Amino acid sequence: MTIPPEISVPPVSRELDGQIRHAIDTKTKPLGALGAIEALAARIARIQGTPTPSLRLCRLVLFAADHGVAAEGVSAYPQEVTRQMVLNFLAGGAAANVFARQVGVDLSVVDAGIAGEPLDVPGLVPRRIAAGTANFVVEPAMSPEQCEAALRNGLLLGEDISADAAAFGEMGIANTSSASMIAHKLTGADLDSLVGPGTGLDAPGLARKTAVLARAAARTAPRLGPGDALREYGGFEIVMMAGAMIGAARTGSLVLVDGFIASVAALAAAGLAPGLSDYLVFAHRSAEPGHRAVLDALGARPLLELDMRLGEGTGALLAWPLLRCAAATLSEMASFESAGVSGPRE
Amino acid sequence: MTIPPEISVPPVSRELDGQIRHAIDTKTKPLGALGAIEALAARIARIQGTPTPSLRLCRLVLFAADHGVAAEGVSAYPQEVTRQMVLNFLAGGAAANVFARQVGVDLSVVDAGIAGEPLDVPGLVPRRIAAGTANFVVEPAMSPEQCEAALRNGLLLGEDISADAAAFGEMGIANTSSASMIAHKLTGADLDSLVGPGTGLDAPGLARKTAVLARAAARTAPRLGPGDALREYGGFEIVMMAGAMIGAARTGSLVLVDGFIASVAALAAAGLAPGLSDYLVFAHRSAEPGHRAVLDALGARPLLELDMRLGEGTGALLAWPLLRCAAATLSEMASFESAGVSGPRE
Repeated sequence: MTIPPEISVPPVSRELDGQIRHAIDTKTKPLGALGAIEALAARIARIQGTPTPSLRLCRLVLFAADHGVAAEGVSAYPQEVTRQMVLNFLAGGAAANVFARQVGVDLSVVDAGIAGEPLDVPGLVPRRIAAGTANFVVEPAMSPEQCEAALRNGLLLGEDISADAAAFGEMGIANTSSASMIAHKLTGADLDSLVGPGTGLDAPGLARKTAVLARAAARTAPRLGPGDALREYGGFEIVMMAGAMIGAARTGSLVLVDGFIASVAALAAAGLAPGLSDYLVFAHRSAEPGHRAVLDALGARPLLELDMRLGEGTGALLAWPLLRCAAATLSEMASFESAGVSGPRE
Repeated sequence: MTIPPEISVPPVSRELDGQIRHAIDTKTKPLGALGAIEALAARIARIQGTPTPSLRLCRLVLFAADHGVAAEGVSAYPQEVTRQMVLNFLAGGAAANVFARQVGVDLSVVDAGIAGEPLDVPGLVPRRIAAGTANFVVEPAMSPEQCEAALRNGLLLGEDISADAAAFGEMGIANTSSASMIAHKLTGADLDSLVGPGTGLDAPGLARKTAVLARAAARTAPRLGPGDALREYGGFEIVMMAGAMIGAARTGSLVLVDGFIASVAALAAAGLAPGLSDYLVFAHRSAEPGHRAVLDALGARPLLELDMRLGEGTGALLAWPLLRCAAATLSEMASFESAGVSGPRE
């Protein structure tokens, strides 16, 4: 598999860091009193290359695809739910739609490789690689050509987002299995610590899923590079999302990372294009237990912790107003001097 | 001091709890996958008495007042900052203004007892009890009549909010000292665990503040009821906020509680009117260390934890979009049945 040369992100300049810090510290509030919001404001300013950043437009792209490993019974839900939920997204009835409307984010849905006949529904963006991946327990999930096509499709979609912030969500029955495998091969963390109940497996279901994934893990070397990990165990939605994160960052857009599966896509994408890390803002810590190890590997401290484990970009959507507020502290708050407010005593 | 009979809140009915739970559990998402947002949705629905709640309008009322104890050097900032920040609020330049604009919340500012001559500025709501409280190290912060007037003014302001949600913020140099004392007398928790750096005291400053407050604590009985705790150690903004929380809840409005000082007001208010607890939603855990004990006393689990310690209602403002999203899951999400999505296997 050839990684296209466009799969790279130039790092963000640190040149304005001192000026940005000064701007934050002279706003009318005690030093550091906005905590994580200040750190977030500084990161947004650095990404935009200005001490007065602006976040107006955020777009959420939802990638949907199916997984051959679903045949192993690793999910609590049948595979047809991917397709049904895509129709639900397009009808506006899923949690992601509801949140997107509340926080003013545009949402689009991409067929990255849904099982069955191609869906012909208005609004669905057709980028399908195949009708689902192969079962990665017995063979690579996709061919090198398929993986490359998914990355490239994602890259182009990401470059076309043209928004201040790009968020990505996913839908794909069995995709926590895919994400756990990629994380396992990339981080070397113990498989048990990376496998969780997903959509809601009970204890026997979880034991079965873990056993299936242990068999899948034995098929390849203990550690893989990001390209091979994506190809061997990826879902088309995960690979496409990784490409889209890189594409969005290449255009200067902040990348708002959702939960476990999106974070695994970010981990692989940052492996392919290390400069990407400067553009990533992590929305929330998922209840899916493997998310912790993935966030640690990324050195990420997410904004929210709400015991959510839905995917669809729902965590990213809830974090979006926090990003807007953070950017606005820099561009709209008065300084001690401009407001005539006294500083600390002495 | 006489507590007016209007200082009471009828408890919220649990009658619809089963119906609300059923509505949440049949939405198109795995059971429990929205975590804390589901619990929040259930609480909002219960407060509004409907399985399809609606949160459109939130108003933030900012209470400002000064504290006699500021003369003891317990704050990093001079007392004049209260007055200066009120002008900053009215000019739209403070963090609370910036956040309020971003999340679509109306903001008003009340003079509950700012030191010096009354401010004559357009937009300021005049409800001042006096030009700051007395120094509670040597005498009660206010007279019984002043405390009763502050409670009643707050009650009337709260009853007049007419919004789906009411949030309250505060501004008052030295008011973490007041809040720590009230919390100490109400909960019996160790004073050391309740006293923190406030706006940013260094270690010697914190030691001085703790010593001052220990002297203040020795002046009264180890435990006080809510009325006496407010009168002995309150700020006018804290007492008025307690009254306003009760007033807002009496009209059926949800009460969105900000950080340490607002939580102390809520603790006192819930002591006076136990039914209030049903209406309280806690926005965030402040970095001010005493907040933890106060939240524990209230059995509260806040939505956000962002190391913020600014007050002004800033935490409540950041939580507001989460509340809107939570309510909308119940009123706007499709069910498995309505969307034709399959449920779990078996």
